[in-house]
Amino acid sequence: MLVTLSGDGVQVVGIHITEFSEYLLIVLVLILIVSLFRIMFAKIPQKLKVMPESGVVIILGCIIGLILFGAGVGEHELLTFNSEVFFLLLIPPVIFESGYHLNNVAFFTNIRLILLYALVGTFINTVSVGICIWLLNPLFIIKLGLAEALTFGALISAVDPVAVIAIFDEVHVNQTLNILVFGESVLNDAVSIVLYSVFSALIHVNHITWVVPGLALSKFFWVAIGGLIMGILFGLACSFLTRFTNGHEIVFLEPIFVAIFAMLAFVVAEILLMSGIVSVLFAGIVMSRYVEMNVGYKSHLAIKYMVNAAAIVADTLIFTYLGISTIFHIVEGDVWDPALICFTLIFIIVFRFILVFVITFFENRVRLDKVSLRDQFIISYGGLRGAIAFALAFLLDEEEVDARGHIITATLVVIWFTVFIMGTTIKPVLSLLNVRRSQDRKQRLAEKTFTYPVQNILSCVNIISGHAQQAWYMYIWHWIDHQITFICVRKLHEGEEELLNTLTKQRKDQPAEAPQNVNMSRMNKNLRNRDPKKRQSQEVSMTDLGNRLNASMNIPLTESHRMGSTMGERDNF
Amino acid sequence: MLVTLSGDGVQVVGIHITEFSEYLLIVLVLILIVSLFRIMFAKIPQKLKVMPESGVVIILGCIIGLILFGAGVGEHELLTFNSEVFFLLLIPPVIFESGYHLNNVAFFTNIRLILLYALVGTFINTVSVGICIWLLNPLFIIKLGLAEALTFGALISAVDPVAVIAIFDEVHVNQTLNILVFGESVLNDAVSIVLYSVFSALIHVNHITWVVPGLALSKFFWVAIGGLIMGILFGLACSFLTRFTNGHEIVFLEPIFVAIFAMLAFVVAEILLMSGIVSVLFAGIVMSRYVEMNVGYKSHLAIKYMVNAAAIVADTLIFTYLGISTIFHIVEGDVWDPALICFTLIFIIVFRFILVFVITFFENRVRLDKVSLRDQFIISYGGLRGAIAFALAFLLDEEEVDARGHIITATLVVIWFTVFIMGTTIKPVLSLLNVRRSQDRKQRLAEKTFTYPVQNILSCVNIISGHAQQAWYMYIWHWIDHQITFICVRKLHEGEEELLNTLTKQRKDQPAEAPQNVNMSRMNKNLRNRDPKKRQSQEVSMTDLGNRLNASMNIPLTESHRMGSTMGERDNF
Repeated sequence: MLVTLSGDGVQVVGIHITEFSEYLLIVLVLILIVSLFRIMFAKIPQKLKVMPESGVVIILGCIIGLILFGAGVGEHELLTFNSEVFFLLLIPPVIFESGYHLNNVAFFTNIRLILLYALVGTFINTVSVGICIWLLNPLFIIKLGLAEALTFGALISAVDPVAVIAIFDEVHVNQTLNILVFGESVLNDAVSIVLYSVFSALIHVNHITWVVPGLALSKFFWVAIGGLIMGILFGLACSFLTRFTNGHEIVFLEPIFVAIFAMLAFVVAEILLMSGIVSVLFAGIVMSRYVEMNVGYKSHLAIKYMVNAAAIVADTLIFTYLGISTIFHIVEGDVWDPALICFTLIFIIVFRFILVFVITFFENRVRLDKVSLRDQFIISYGGLRGAIAFALAFLLDEEEVDARGHIITATLVVIWFTVFIMGTTIKPVLSLLNVRRSQDRKQRLAEKTFTYPVQNILSCVNIISGHAQQAWYMYIWHWIDHQITFICVRKLHEGEEELLNTLTKQRKDQPAEAPQNVNMSRMNKNLRNRDPKKRQSQEVSMTDLGNRLNASMNIPLTESHRMGSTMGERDNF
Repeated sequence: MLVTLSGDGVQVVGIHITEFSEYLLIVLVLILIVSLFRIMFAKIPQKLKVMPESGVVIILGCIIGLILFGAGVGEHELLTFNSEVFFLLLIPPVIFESGYHLNNVAFFTNIRLILLYALVGTFINTVSVGICIWLLNPLFIIKLGLAEALTFGALISAVDPVAVIAIFDEVHVNQTLNILVFGESVLNDAVSIVLYSVFSALIHVNHITWVVPGLALSKFFWVAIGGLIMGILFGLACSFLTRFTNGHEIVFLEPIFVAIFAMLAFVVAEILLMSGIVSVLFAGIVMSRYVEMNVGYKSHLAIKYMVNAAAIVADTLIFTYLGISTIFHIVEGDVWDPALICFTLIFIIVFRFILVFVITFFENRVRLDKVSLRDQFIISYGGLRGAIAFALAFLLDEEEVDARGHIITATLVVIWFTVFIMGTTIKPVLSLLNVRRSQDRKQRLAEKTFTYPVQNILSCVNIISGHAQQAWYMYIWHWIDHQITFICVRKLHEGEEELLNTLTKQRKDQPAEAPQNVNMSRMNKNLRNRDPKKRQSQEVSMTDLGNRLNASMNIPLTESHRMGSTMGERDNF
C-alpha cells in the first residue's frame, strides 16, 4: 500500500506499508494489547476477581474476534497466525517457565504417582471416553467410527498444562497437590499425542493387524523418551556453553542462550516427531540446575525476567487466540451437536473422577504421605482442558473426519466449561473442602526458628527408620550429577573453592539437606584436583559464589525463589 | 518434507519439517552461530586482535556465503532473509541501545557541532561526491546521469552508526570525540535518506521545476523532525505505561514494554516515511530518562541485559549479512568498474577530511572546549560506511538505474575498505597521534577525591564568568521535564519523598550537577502537593529510591554506568 502527497516525483508525506511491516506491526500491537490487559487485570482488587484470568482473556479474545469478524476479516486471513505458528512459538515459553521454576524435589518425590496419572490414567481415560462415545453413536448427528471416537477420546483427555498453570497460579494450593496436577498435565501430553496420532492414522485403515499395538508402544517410547532425552541434551548443551560466557559484554548473551536452547529443544523435538512439551520441560529442569550454577546474580535476574515475561505474554496470547478461534468457529454455523457435547462433558468428568480415585487408592497403600480424599477431589476437579486439545481437534483432517466441525465445537465447549465453570468454582470449592493452602503470609520468627530443626529431626528419623529414599538410584544420580557438574560448570578459583567447601560442609552438617541433593563428591574432587594449570582464571564475585553455593545445594536464592515456585508460580518482588 | 519409518499407517520414527519450523530453525541456528562467534572472539587475547570484530564477522559472513553458494542456494532463496526484514529487525536494536546508553549531557553539549557535521557536512559531501562522479562520467563503463550520480553520492555519504559503534566500542577514545563521531553517524542518516529519495526520484524526471528544492526541504523536515517527534512520543508512551507496572508478576513486563515501544517507534516511523533511525534513537534517549525513573533495580538490570543482548546479536547479524551479500553479489559477475571504485574511494576520503576540518574550524571560533586537530583527523578517519549505504544501494531500481550492479559493487568496496583498512588502522593511528583515550583503569583514590571538587569549582567559575550555558532554553527544558515527570513517573510515598528531597537538596548544594540536569521544580512541587488521596500506594524499595534519585539527577547508578557508556559502550561487570 502506498499513499502519497507528492509533486514532481518527490514523495513528501505518505504511508508505505509492506507485507512484512504490516505483519510486524500486528504482532507488536497484539503483544502490547495483551500486556496492557495483564496490567489492567493486576490492578483489579483481589476481591473482585470472581473469574480466573484465563477466562477473562478468552472473553477478551472473543471480543477481538467479533471486531475482526465485523471488520470483515475472514477465517482465511486469520490463518496467517495459524495453529502451527501458535504451537511452535507460544507453547514453549509457558512450559519452559514451569520447568525452569519447577520444584525439582517435590516433582521427583511424587514422580511415581504423577506417572501413574499421566500414563495409566490418560490411557484408560482415552479408551473409556472413546468407546462410550462410540457406543452412543446412534444419538449423534454424524456417526463416529471407532477410530474416530478413540481419536476424539485421546484429544479430549489431554489435560492442558497452560490452563492448569493459569488457574493454579491464582489459587495457592499446597505444594504436593500443585505438583501432582501440574506434573500430570505436562507428562500426559506425550500419551495423548501418541494415542491421537495412532488412532487418527487408523481412521481409514480397514485391515488392522496385531502389529499396531507394538507400533503404538514403540511410538510412545519415541515420543516420550525421545522428548526427554532431547530436552536433557539441549539443556546440557546450554549449560556447557554458559561455562564460557563470563567476560565483558558476552555475559549479556546468557539469557539469549537460554532462550535459544529452550526453543531449539522444542522445535527439534517436534521436527523429529517427539513430544516438544516433554523436551522443553526437561530442558528447563536441566538448565535451572546447571545454568544457574554458572551464571552470576545479574544474569540470574535477567534470565528470570526473560523467562517469566515470555511465559506471561505467551500464556495470554494462547487464551486470546482461543477466544478469537471460538468466534470464527461458531460463525461458520452448523457445527453444534448437543448430544455429543453433553455426553462428552459427562464422560470426561465422570471418568476423570473415577480414575483419580482408583489410582490414588492403590498408590496410597504404598505411600507414606497419603493423598487425602479432598486433594483427590481437587486433582479430579483441576483436570482443565485447553490449547492442546483445541490444537489437536483443529489438526484433524477435514476430508477424512466428517464430524470435524462437531468435534471442534465439542472440544471448545469442554474447554470453556472447564476453564470457566471449574476454574471459577475451584476457589470456593477449595474453601468449602478446607483444603490445605500454601502459605502466602511471611513466616513468623518462631516458625523460621523451629521449622528447620524439626525438619532435620524428621529426616533423621526417616533415615534411621529406613524410610528415607536413600536408595541406589540416588547414588547413581549423585555420580551423574558430579560428572555433569565437572563438565558443564565453571571451575572456581582456589580461594573461592575453599570457601565453597567450608560453606558446603557447614550445610552438610545439617542432615535435612544433605541426603537429597548435595553433590559432595564434586566438592571433594575439586578439593583434591588442585592443579592450577587445569583451572581457568575466571572471575567469580562473592555474590556469584553465594549463588553458586545455593545452586549446587538446590537451595533457593531467596526463600520465595524456587521453593515456593512450583507450578510456575512467579516470585513476588 | 516428510520422512517416515512406519507400518499400517502408524508413523513411528520420522522427520516432519514444515516451512515455518524450517524458518524458525534457521533463525535460531543463525543467532546461535553469531553468539558463539562472539564468545570465541571475546576469548582471544587482546593483543592478537589486529582486525576489528566487525571485520572478522564480515569474513565469517563471506565463509557462510561461500558455503551457501557451494550448497547451491541461489540468490533468490537468500531473499527470504531480504533487506527489508534485515532493515526492520536488525537496525532498531543497535540504534536503540546507543540511544539508551547515550551520554545525554555530552550529546546535548555538543549538539551544535554534531548537527553541523550531520546536516551541512553530509549535504555538501553528497553534492560534491555526486557532481565529481558525474563530471568523470566518460571514464566509467556505464554512464551515470546527474541524478544517478547524486543518488550514489547520497548513499555513499551515509556514515553508518552500526559500523561506527562496532569500531569505536573497541578503541576507547575520549568522550567528546566519541559522541561527535557517533552523533553525526546517527543523525546524518536522516539527511542521507532524504537526499537519496529526492535524487533517486528525479532519475527519470525530465522536467525539473523550482518546486523540487522546496519539496526536498519539506521532505527533510518530515523525515527528520517527524522521526524525532515520533521517537519522543513512543518514548513517553512507554514511560507513562511503566508508571503502572509495579506489582506482583507484571513487573516482569517492563523489559517487554521497552522492547515493544522501541520497535514500534522504528516501524511506525518507517511506515510514515520518516527516519526510523532518528525515531528509535530519541525513543531510547527519552526512555533512558523516564523509564529508568519508574523501574526498580532488578528491572533496570533486566532491561539493560535485554537491550545489550539484542544489540550484540543484531550488530553481529548485520555484518554477517554484509559478508554473505558480498559473496552473492560478486558471483553474479560483470559488476566491476575499477574507475568508479577508485574515484569513489578517493572522493569520499578527501571530501570528508576537507569538510570536517572546515566545519570544525568555524565551530572552534565560538567553542570553549576546542576540538584539536588530532581529534578532527580521527573524526574524518572514523567516517565508516556500512549497512545503511549497502541497503540504500540495494534498494535502487534495477530497471531505472542501469549502473545498479556497479554502484552496489562500489558501495561494497567502500564498506570493506572503511571497515577493514580504516577500522584496522585506527588503533595504531590513535597511538601515533597520541589521542586522548578514555580511562579504562580504575580511578586512584586521589583522583576520586579531587576530581569532583575541582569540577565544582570549574563550573562555578563558568557560571560566574557567564560562560555556563544557563540559558533560557535550559529553563524551558526544566519546565518541560517537570511536566513530563509529573505525568509519566510514579508518585512516591510521603516518607520516601522527603528522603528524596533531602538527598536532592544535599546534591543540589554541589553546584556542578545542579545547573545541568536536576529538575528541582518537581521536588518542590511534590513537597507542596501532599494530598494523600492523590497519591497512589505503590511500593518502592530503598534501592529503587536511590535509583530514582540517581535517575532524576542524571547521575549514573555506578560510575561505569551511563557516564562512560557513550557510543553504546557496554558496562563491564
